[in-house]
Amino acid sequence: MTHNVAILGASGYTGAELVRLIAEHPNMTIAALSADRKAGQSMAEVFPHLRHMDLPDLCKIEEIDFSQIDLCFCALPHKTSQQVILGLPRDLKIVDLSADFRLRDPAAYKAWYGNDHAALEIQQEAVYGLTEFYRDDIRGARLVAGTGCNAATGQFALRPLIAAGLIDLDQIILDLKCAVSGAGRSLKENLLHAELSEGYNAYAIGGTHRHLGEFDQEFSAIAGRPVQVQFTPHLMPANRGILATAYVQGDPGRIYDALAGAYLKEPFLQVLPFGEAPSTHHVRGSNFCHIGVTADRIEGRAIVIAALDNLTKGSSGQALQNANLMLGEEETAGLMMAPLFP
Amino acid sequence: MTHNVAILGASGYTGAELVRLIAEHPNMTIAALSADRKAGQSMAEVFPHLRHMDLPDLCKIEEIDFSQIDLCFCALPHKTSQQVILGLPRDLKIVDLSADFRLRDPAAYKAWYGNDHAALEIQQEAVYGLTEFYRDDIRGARLVAGTGCNAATGQFALRPLIAAGLIDLDQIILDLKCAVSGAGRSLKENLLHAELSEGYNAYAIGGTHRHLGEFDQEFSAIAGRPVQVQFTPHLMPANRGILATAYVQGDPGRIYDALAGAYLKEPFLQVLPFGEAPSTHHVRGSNFCHIGVTADRIEGRAIVIAALDNLTKGSSGQALQNANLMLGEEETAGLMMAPLFP
Amino acid sequence: MTHNVAILGASGYTGAELVRLIAEHPNMTIAALSADRKAGQSMAEVFPHLRHMDLPDLCKIEEIDFSQIDLCFCALPHKTSQQVILGLPRDLKIVDLSADFRLRDPAAYKAWYGNDHAALEIQQEAVYGLTEFYRDDIRGARLVAGTGCNAATGQFALRPLIAAGLIDLDQIILDLKCAVSGAGRSLKENLLHAELSEGYNAYAIGGTHRHLGEFDQEFSAIAGRPVQVQFTPHLMPANRGILATAYVQGDPGRIYDALAGAYLKEPFLQVLPFGEAPSTHHVRGSNFCHIGVTADRIEGRAIVIAALDNLTKGSSGQALQNANLMLGEEETAGLMMAPLFP
Amino acid sequence: MTHNVAILGASGYTGAELVRLIAEHPNMTIAALSADRKAGQSMAEVFPHLRHMDLPDLCKIEEIDFSQIDLCFCALPHKTSQQVILGLPRDLKIVDLSADFRLRDPAAYKAWYGNDHAALEIQQEAVYGLTEFYRDDIRGARLVAGTGCNAATGQFALRPLIAAGLIDLDQIILDLKCAVSGAGRSLKENLLHAELSEGYNAYAIGGTHRHLGEFDQEFSAIAGRPVQVQFTPHLMPANRGILATAYVQGDPGRIYDALAGAYLKEPFLQVLPFGEAPSTHHVRGSNFCHIGVTADRIEGRAIVIAALDNLTKGSSGQALQNANLMLGEEETAGLMMAPLFP
Repeated sequence: MTHNVAILGASGYTGAELVRLIAEHPNMTIAALSADRKAGQSMAEVFPHLRHMDLPDLCKIEEIDFSQIDLCFCALPHKTSQQVILGLPRDLKIVDLSADFRLRDPAAYKAWYGNDHAALEIQQEAVYGLTEFYRDDIRGARLVAGTGCNAATGQFALRPLIAAGLIDLDQIILDLKCAVSGAGRSLKENLLHAELSEGYNAYAIGGTHRHLGEFDQEFSAIAGRPVQVQFTPHLMPANRGILATAYVQGDPGRIYDALAGAYLKEPFLQVLPFGEAPSTHHVRGSNFCHIGVTADRIEGRAIVIAALDNLTKGSSGQALQNANLMLGEEETAGLMMAPLFP
Repeated sequence: MTHNVAILGASGYTGAELVRLIAEHPNMTIAALSADRKAGQSMAEVFPHLRHMDLPDLCKIEEIDFSQIDLCFCALPHKTSQQVILGLPRDLKIVDLSADFRLRDPAAYKAWYGNDHAALEIQQEAVYGLTEFYRDDIRGARLVAGTGCNAATGQFALRPLIAAGLIDLDQIILDLKCAVSGAGRSLKENLLHAELSEGYNAYAIGGTHRHLGEFDQEFSAIAGRPVQVQFTPHLMPANRGILATAYVQGDPGRIYDALAGAYLKEPFLQVLPFGEAPSTHHVRGSNFCHIGVTADRIEGRAIVIAALDNLTKGSSGQALQNANLMLGEEETAGLMMAPLFP
Repeated sequence: MTHNVAILGASGYTGAELVRLIAEHPNMTIAALSADRKAGQSMAEVFPHLRHMDLPDLCKIEEIDFSQIDLCFCALPHKTSQQVILGLPRDLKIVDLSADFRLRDPAAYKAWYGNDHAALEIQQEAVYGLTEFYRDDIRGARLVAGTGCNAATGQFALRPLIAAGLIDLDQIILDLKCAVSGAGRSLKENLLHAELSEGYNAYAIGGTHRHLGEFDQEFSAIAGRPVQVQFTPHLMPANRGILATAYVQGDPGRIYDALAGAYLKEPFLQVLPFGEAPSTHHVRGSNFCHIGVTADRIEGRAIVIAALDNLTKGSSGQALQNANLMLGEEETAGLMMAPLFP
Repeated sequence: MTHNVAILGASGYTGAELVRLIAEHPNMTIAALSADRKAGQSMAEVFPHLRHMDLPDLCKIEEIDFSQIDLCFCALPHKTSQQVILGLPRDLKIVDLSADFRLRDPAAYKAWYGNDHAALEIQQEAVYGLTEFYRDDIRGARLVAGTGCNAATGQFALRPLIAAGLIDLDQIILDLKCAVSGAGRSLKENLLHAELSEGYNAYAIGGTHRHLGEFDQEFSAIAGRPVQVQFTPHLMPANRGILATAYVQGDPGRIYDALAGAYLKEPFLQVLPFGEAPSTHHVRGSNFCHIGVTADRIEGRAIVIAALDNLTKGSSGQALQNANLMLGEEETAGLMMAPLFP
């Protein structure tokens, strides 16, 4: 049986990535694509790399007959998403890729995003979409909140260590390097090729990046007490890929065992042999996350590094993985393609 | 029924690309991978991006039991390939990705490659592997010679025009831009990131590039008289992609119609609306070739531009497309994945 | 004696490049920098790479006391430039980097730019700023029109050949590759890193690029009869550099001699040994132009390739070279720095 | 008076960078260039971007008449350098860019480099070449050991803080991002464009990078007790630039004041306003180092980030700065050029 899906906000990178992935899915059909400002255009006009596909034209959301839709991906901007979802049928399965439903505490939402949430009652039913850790909840969920791409990467590196009480919770430093597609298709000066290529810099330094809201929520919940990590993202001259370098204090061998054990049966989370370094080169375009652990020369210190593709495992691949669970499909359907290298 | 295939020379980029593509094929199993100097290593050691796959370890060619192999891809260097194939069973189906069997005339081979051919009798049975133009021959072939990646791109732009007598055969100029993976995984100074990125240059200027042997052979055969094009390749700071800009003299409208007509039913050759420009961005990682035609302001002149991914449609994708025909599979099997963008 | 100069439109790339170059000039002081929308900001805010310099803050044009200015660089957008220059003192020496004063024929200007020229009488006194060919006129000029960066590159490759009657004027093809800074600091989707890096494409195909107005004007004037070249620019994933590949019909040896002879004493135009290929890598950040000539395998055909940095020799370096002449300075002052490699 | 200098090992990136910089120096002449394996070639053959310069051909070291040389730059590989310097006149002023004379303790040298030092008595007279901190010693030195490029960047971020006792010495984490030219012009697979571009990874994880020898030596000397930092370098897809992100525990305001105070009069060390982020984009090709300090949301934590060009301030620029001091020249001579942006 084929499931009909809609993608709202299909003119952005995560929308295009969803189309690319769903094209490989055995049981999913793209029944509607919306992009308000580009309604009426064909997908080939907006994304010429998809011109070989037989896709519905872009439309306005109100033109979609949701009674024919089994699941809806929302790839809309933050704040827009909550308003749109408020207007959708209350029994429609939704995977939201925005930040709007990630934080369970309305006060935390307001603190990080600056506004009151417009759809609080819906927010209550949202399940946090980090598949490997919320699998059962996601299976039964109506609304799944895709995680931040940085937040996913950092959590893959750290959750099992916090859960097992293996590291000093007050000394976690997460130095993260993110490729430019994480910033979306927006026209900003610092995203121009001439400004971005051939150099790199940190941004949102000092604990101001919004994905910290997710780290705080999740790590504190696991630990059973408030946990704050130090998190500094850097913008890299590359299109895809997040590398999270986590500096932790604990026994490197036990840290490795905890990660290797936790992810032993995970199809997408690959723990490398002890001491090996993951690279974003080796996950590009795929749903895999590579994780490496190394002991530092200073006793009781370890470096845990996680690499994934921000557009795939970091957002659209995760979204499809969650949709598979919600629709009773094989979790890996459409997602096992190998990375593109070089 | 699953076909067992072997890949000889699996430690190069075309070898890795074959593995990536075959992984998506419904009826093909990788039964053996050879790489003489890296025999004994796992594929994950040589290409960490393939670490999630269950693949045979790299071995020496002589360790392969070819009686269990339905088809063999040879991704070996030029000259090595002819010697190896000489030693393989004479009834083994082979797709060769090297230059060794592309030129039918031994004198032409010697002129372009500088040595006598070591496997002349096998050369006689080889079919030139430009799928869309040799489809029927390929179906029945035992040995198919994959084309040069530049040669394929230029031919997609020009063959129908030469065949239809639409352009001046003495005034064809092919200015081609090729990404660096076309040069393989070889350790050359000019392929270092520090030497190559952020700049570009022509090479093999003046008609010395070996792919001209293929252009001469094919275009002359179509035209029924000697045809020589002017061909200048340029090395681009990108990993994948060939853009061939062909300057031709003839009626732009008829030129467009000839190309659009010739490729109307081709799944991989996409002719863009008249006047639109193809881009290598829009074919990356895919088996598609985008072709555009524009009229110049000078009457009777047209520009025909073709874009493809050198590792996919230009070599490994083409190889799989040919293997599909040779094995009685759907020609497009394992090859319809969308390009990776961005 | 130090000359006081002003730069109007200092917040763009050519403005910043002028500042970088003038900083090395022994006898030039930057007395004023304008940028209407960023007036009041420091240059360090707009271009942090200049933060070590002691520069005037950005101001509005009307705040500049032009009686204290010896020469004014206008790095303003097209159309804006002619209006601004109309309002400047009529005896102020000006080097304009826009397209507004390049075309001598008002009809040609209107044909290429789509509007009537707003400052026709000033246009008449403008000298075309291709230094090596208009040196004497520039020395005595009040207003010099900087050339298009593509136009400069193509002319360096072709002018001596047309002047000497060495090539077929009806068979000139110019396939040009330009880096992204040529498009300026404008917020366009195709200039984003995610859209531009790792791929390339032609644009303004078919003879629609405005720099053709300059080629037509200059080549026709040299030849004494109308000359139209075929010109196709391509956008490259690099920040600086133009490579012009010119396909011409004529004797390669005589072509080489004509170029080598013409540029023998030129400090910035370097003709490479016959058969060598120039590269944009080797001129980055410098005022040099490298030129190479190769014979094609087809008799009577040659390929002439010119490489320069679009922001330096293609615009701001040329502008400073012209300013030096206008101010009685050494032509090379501030311009002899070596390229940056890698 | 002009000083005659020689550059040994001129065929590498630091050699070429020295030539580029010295070309702008008012009082320095390049009298000899050596490159053993390329002896007899012109510099233009090895580095075409220098073809406009009038330079001596590459020669063997033994062909140089050192009696005519006022100062010698050694840009040779590690281990080779100490052997060569052992054979040079004992009164020749030398700036060595290799690692051979950086570590004062022979045991530390052996521990990090794996071999006994071959020129111990010369090592004793070497002065560590971090100009801003060893200025007086360098002025009188005969042999100056250029620092590691990573080591310089980290020290600019941290030395004043350690000296002032402002940070917890046991909790210093240095996450460093380095461009590829830091690895030199060596033919290694991971330095190929196809392997390096569009991705990034850590290397020498866990405290195994040799520049740690310098950090240990210098930080311990300043602190008066052993100090070990955690240091993880990452390889970036860019040609030039190091960004060092230092995580320290101490009062952010006092940390900022200490850095701003220490570097107030330093021409090349630019401390940005509190909270601003430096970028490698803004120092490319220059001798400047930009330093930024931000307070973390966690009290008592600060992030100190330093950015410089590894080939300029990180090696050849530093070398020239030291040579200026040794020769009684203005320290900034030949080094004040603005960065190249974009």
